[in-house]
Amino acid sequence: MATGEVAMSREETEAFKVLVKNTLERRLFYIPSYKIYGGVAGFYDYGPWGCQVETNVLNLWRQHFVMEEDMWEIRCPCVTPEVVLKASGHVDKFTDLMVKDEKLGSCFRADHLLKDFLTKALEEFEEIKREREAAPGVAAQVVVEKKDKKKVAEKKRELLTPEKKREMQADLAGLDEFSGPELGAKIKAYGIKSPESGNDLSDPYPFNLMFSTQIGPTGTLQGYMRPETAQGIFVNFRDLYYESGNRLPFAAAQIGSAYRNEIAPRQGPMRVREFTMAEIEHFVNPDDKSHPKFKNVADLEIYLFPRAEQTALESHVKMRIGDAVEKGIVDNETLGYFIARTYLFLTKLGINKNRLRFRQHLANEMAHYAQDCWDAEIECSYGWFECVGCADRSAYDLKAHTAKSGHELTAYEKFDEPKDEMKLTIVPNKKVLGKEFRKDQKILSESLEAMTREEALALKAELEEKEKVTYKVCTTGQEFQLTKDMVAISEKLEKSHGRNFTPSVIEPSFGIGRIMYCLYEHCFYTRPAVPGEPTTTVFRFPPIVAPVKCTVFPLMQREVLNAKAKKMSNGLTRAGVSNKLDITGRSIGKRYARTDEVGIPFAITVDFDEGVTVRERDSKQQVRISDVDVVDLVRDLANGSMVWEDVTAKYKLVTVTESEADS
Amino acid sequence: MATGEVAMSREETEAFKVLVKNTLERRLFYIPSYKIYGGVAGFYDYGPWGCQVETNVLNLWRQHFVMEEDMWEIRCPCVTPEVVLKASGHVDKFTDLMVKDEKLGSCFRADHLLKDFLTKALEEFEEIKREREAAPGVAAQVVVEKKDKKKVAEKKRELLTPEKKREMQADLAGLDEFSGPELGAKIKAYGIKSPESGNDLSDPYPFNLMFSTQIGPTGTLQGYMRPETAQGIFVNFRDLYYESGNRLPFAAAQIGSAYRNEIAPRQGPMRVREFTMAEIEHFVNPDDKSHPKFKNVADLEIYLFPRAEQTALESHVKMRIGDAVEKGIVDNETLGYFIARTYLFLTKLGINKNRLRFRQHLANEMAHYAQDCWDAEIECSYGWFECVGCADRSAYDLKAHTAKSGHELTAYEKFDEPKDEMKLTIVPNKKVLGKEFRKDQKILSESLEAMTREEALALKAELEEKEKVTYKVCTTGQEFQLTKDMVAISEKLEKSHGRNFTPSVIEPSFGIGRIMYCLYEHCFYTRPAVPGEPTTTVFRFPPIVAPVKCTVFPLMQREVLNAKAKKMSNGLTRAGVSNKLDITGRSIGKRYARTDEVGIPFAITVDFDEGVTVRERDSKQQVRISDVDVVDLVRDLANGSMVWEDVTAKYKLVTVTESEADS
Repeated sequence: MATGEVAMSREETEAFKVLVKNTLERRLFYIPSYKIYGGVAGFYDYGPWGCQVETNVLNLWRQHFVMEEDMWEIRCPCVTPEVVLKASGHVDKFTDLMVKDEKLGSCFRADHLLKDFLTKALEEFEEIKREREAAPGVAAQVVVEKKDKKKVAEKKRELLTPEKKREMQADLAGLDEFSGPELGAKIKAYGIKSPESGNDLSDPYPFNLMFSTQIGPTGTLQGYMRPETAQGIFVNFRDLYYESGNRLPFAAAQIGSAYRNEIAPRQGPMRVREFTMAEIEHFVNPDDKSHPKFKNVADLEIYLFPRAEQTALESHVKMRIGDAVEKGIVDNETLGYFIARTYLFLTKLGINKNRLRFRQHLANEMAHYAQDCWDAEIECSYGWFECVGCADRSAYDLKAHTAKSGHELTAYEKFDEPKDEMKLTIVPNKKVLGKEFRKDQKILSESLEAMTREEALALKAELEEKEKVTYKVCTTGQEFQLTKDMVAISEKLEKSHGRNFTPSVIEPSFGIGRIMYCLYEHCFYTRPAVPGEPTTTVFRFPPIVAPVKCTVFPLMQREVLNAKAKKMSNGLTRAGVSNKLDITGRSIGKRYARTDEVGIPFAITVDFDEGVTVRERDSKQQVRISDVDVVDLVRDLANGSMVWEDVTAKYKLVTVTESEADS
Repeated sequence: MATGEVAMSREETEAFKVLVKNTLERRLFYIPSYKIYGGVAGFYDYGPWGCQVETNVLNLWRQHFVMEEDMWEIRCPCVTPEVVLKASGHVDKFTDLMVKDEKLGSCFRADHLLKDFLTKALEEFEEIKREREAAPGVAAQVVVEKKDKKKVAEKKRELLTPEKKREMQADLAGLDEFSGPELGAKIKAYGIKSPESGNDLSDPYPFNLMFSTQIGPTGTLQGYMRPETAQGIFVNFRDLYYESGNRLPFAAAQIGSAYRNEIAPRQGPMRVREFTMAEIEHFVNPDDKSHPKFKNVADLEIYLFPRAEQTALESHVKMRIGDAVEKGIVDNETLGYFIARTYLFLTKLGINKNRLRFRQHLANEMAHYAQDCWDAEIECSYGWFECVGCADRSAYDLKAHTAKSGHELTAYEKFDEPKDEMKLTIVPNKKVLGKEFRKDQKILSESLEAMTREEALALKAELEEKEKVTYKVCTTGQEFQLTKDMVAISEKLEKSHGRNFTPSVIEPSFGIGRIMYCLYEHCFYTRPAVPGEPTTTVFRFPPIVAPVKCTVFPLMQREVLNAKAKKMSNGLTRAGVSNKLDITGRSIGKRYARTDEVGIPFAITVDFDEGVTVRERDSKQQVRISDVDVVDLVRDLANGSMVWEDVTAKYKLVTVTESEADS
């Protein structure tokens, strides 16, 4: 049965999560990394099926974004020297607040500890309340017996005042905004201890989440594993702008690994320490964020969760993206366009559109430089989870790298009409200055040339009034007596034909692993048992993302059928249709169950007759088709140029039940 | 002109290298990473064109190996805990010998310093010799004037004895075999100093080439960035074997980044610190390394450079791979099969088959456990360079991980017929032992059970002879007095139905970046200048690997033509044909030159008439074709199902010269 939109209780959700996890690990979509050595938290291998799903997701991403939006894709190293991440702010700010078990040294995320404590406490309050209402006066006793620890229960009962509850709820809601000292004070006030040992905890302090390393053998070049792929694009802005014919807008994309040395990763494949990102940096003139293709997507209706609805504690709302931009809920067309394109990409993959929403960052949640930011959140058994960020980062990144590197990362805009502009000219008379001030001429000239418009005009006025004017070089503190002949200052109207400016960046940033995990959950369902067989599970992946497109079976274990199946498999491979041959000799029913379990959409069975049987995974329908035509048919089904309904319209269904096939 | 097989002088080679480098960097195939910060040695970004070439190379690799050979592809993290790389040997042995400038701390590879010194010295000898022969008695003077340093020249002349020359040649040839102390002694003996400063150098010492990092916040879990992708496959052997139906042979593959913290990288893109590898681990029964598809490749003629030819200082030889295996030059069919498949892959990419050879490792060069090893070497301006290693690594890796992890990484083989086997049984009588030795019973029982066959039979004999026998537990040194009733030792014939064994591994390992660089050189040529235009350069990439397949131009800058071109581009994109629209308004000749320069094989020009012009890159031939048919045509050309000759056979050539087109 599909999990679909049916609301599940917490117990059902947990059971569902475990069932999906077991299936994914049994069939090697995931393998906990270094399993034979006990594993390392936060690392997963993609086994054969998971690896192929990722390849398909990335290929679709390339087609959907890089090709269809005509972007530049580039690939940069993961090892990054410190200077780059100093400029981007990661060295100083890419941190989480951590507390340590004071005796054992184990580390915990401070906010997680507080969150867990509050969530659990509030749940237990509700439990006691329910029981008390059910049998007043007895409830407390029930709890005591249940927990078998009178004191604990008493303490909790005592805490159950409306004021306390409100305080806890407020703390839970405000969790993300606490500073380190605030978090520390809360942890102390609630008496939270190390969950492993009950020991006291240290005060919270920031832990930098980048994996650190040394580049080269000298020990003098500090490096980090990149925390995102974006910086590689920013530092190459100049070259990419040039290759784009010095035109805006243009976009560059990068797919690759990124790293985050989580303090204590949990939430399985949703929070890992090494992951694949796919990021786009769309560079645009800050004065014109319209998008020529926005009209193509304006009518899409998408669940949005704007700031207003969040602060009013309301729910997300379905909205036409065109309206959202028009009403100013989404800041501009380009940002709206990428939200819509992201929606189309995710739903094409197989993400359930009713469990996908775009949540706007609250004002205090957004980086100070960001113009607007929307997270694509997907609902899964871990809750609503951020899987894509769509941010208008304004000119922040390019300006930061300009300042740090000294290289201007700007674009040039030619005006439609030349504009009149007042232009200031400051010309120190170096000959006169040199005669008078000797070796100080250079520093004095440079200082004069660096004056602001206001300073220059004030000096000009003073020089015209007095014979001698005292001028102070602010960097050295030296003072000089200037006369009128020593510097020419003038201002005049000039025609300006264009300007240099720092482009804004719109950044859609995809966490591929999180999207994949949500996809697994959204595609997963269980199928009632065939008599005599256990219940089977299925992934209803769209063919385009399914790990392989087709299995090929001989009907039974015979040399001649194996050979026929092998030939069929080779033909599919030559046509570029990924496929798996299964000549294990298991029963047909079991073999179908095994391919359903990994979500292979089509199965071809060869037998002694002419032609073959093609079976579709979800309907379990079968058609008979000539072995000449079947390769093209499955190729078209696999690449989406045909759907199964086209097949059943053309070919007659074969009415063989799957258990019969085994007889 | 093609570089092809024409032997170039050293100066020509250097000039060619610079020309290729400039083209690759100007058109952003490569961008030195973090360029605006001055760059970091050993890191390159792939700009748009390079990135697309890499994607195409990897897709072809997947089709050629993973799909056609039915392998399991998996993906593991790069961050690896120390225990895994301790088992593999990398923590102890993945080192280069390094020397330090004793004053400045700069680091150098010891072998490179010696090699550079010897190469240069020998060259200068030759130079002096040539000059002396040309004008006896004057040569020395010429050199002095040239170098403007009499003393230096004198010293070199003095060195020019036949004995000295032979010594230097021998040292150069034996470079790879020197130990650290030997290298140190040579550096001292030749008086080699720091090339940067002339300072003294330290003794050579091993520097581990792995990038080191810490996993998690505690500082107690040492990790490294993986130096190869192979280990991720080995540690997952059990699961992959199970998913393969517990059958051998099977193969797993992995594509991903690997890291090598080079001491002082030079040789540009051929020696970098972060690179993409594509590795295959083919697991096979050590008693049967035949390959069912070997017959399909046996007739291929490939340049091989066997051990015998190398030690005899002869050249590589063209050989039928079938003969090489039959004669025992290549150890076994499976290894031979992968050599042949590697050859087919590389030549399909566009590697010149006459500049590709497989060189066998010399006995002293090969790891002690390896059965046989052949490097695919490709000739480029850096010389013959290892780009792929094909090794039979025997059971080494699986045994190493079995020993370290305690998990048996073995396969099971069912015998065709049950075999008679002597089976030893050791049963300690725990009750009696417990009574006698109390808490020591456990360690004693374990020790008894762990006896070898010889030890057990000796003990049995002794117990039958004497009343009491002294038994020593070797791990603790404790001694115990045993009697006959304390342990039952027996041996009898049993039917054995199968055996567990550790599979052998055949490993083809591809350095994708090196292959790509060689591909660039092999595809590069210069084209005589069109009058009025500078000389242009071209990459003759096969369509399958070309960064994009097609450019689309409007004949001139007109709104209606731009729209028409855009429509054509969208149609190609929908059909999955990567393409670039060029509406820059440059002259047609310039636009052709720009697409030739990045190796785009086809260009479509739209004009005011019905139909479009398609132009092929290398022949510069053009045909006229309807705009309906052109998409399919270019798609077929791009995926290789059609070649240009098929087009010219079907469509009439248009005789427009490219300069005319601009008029």
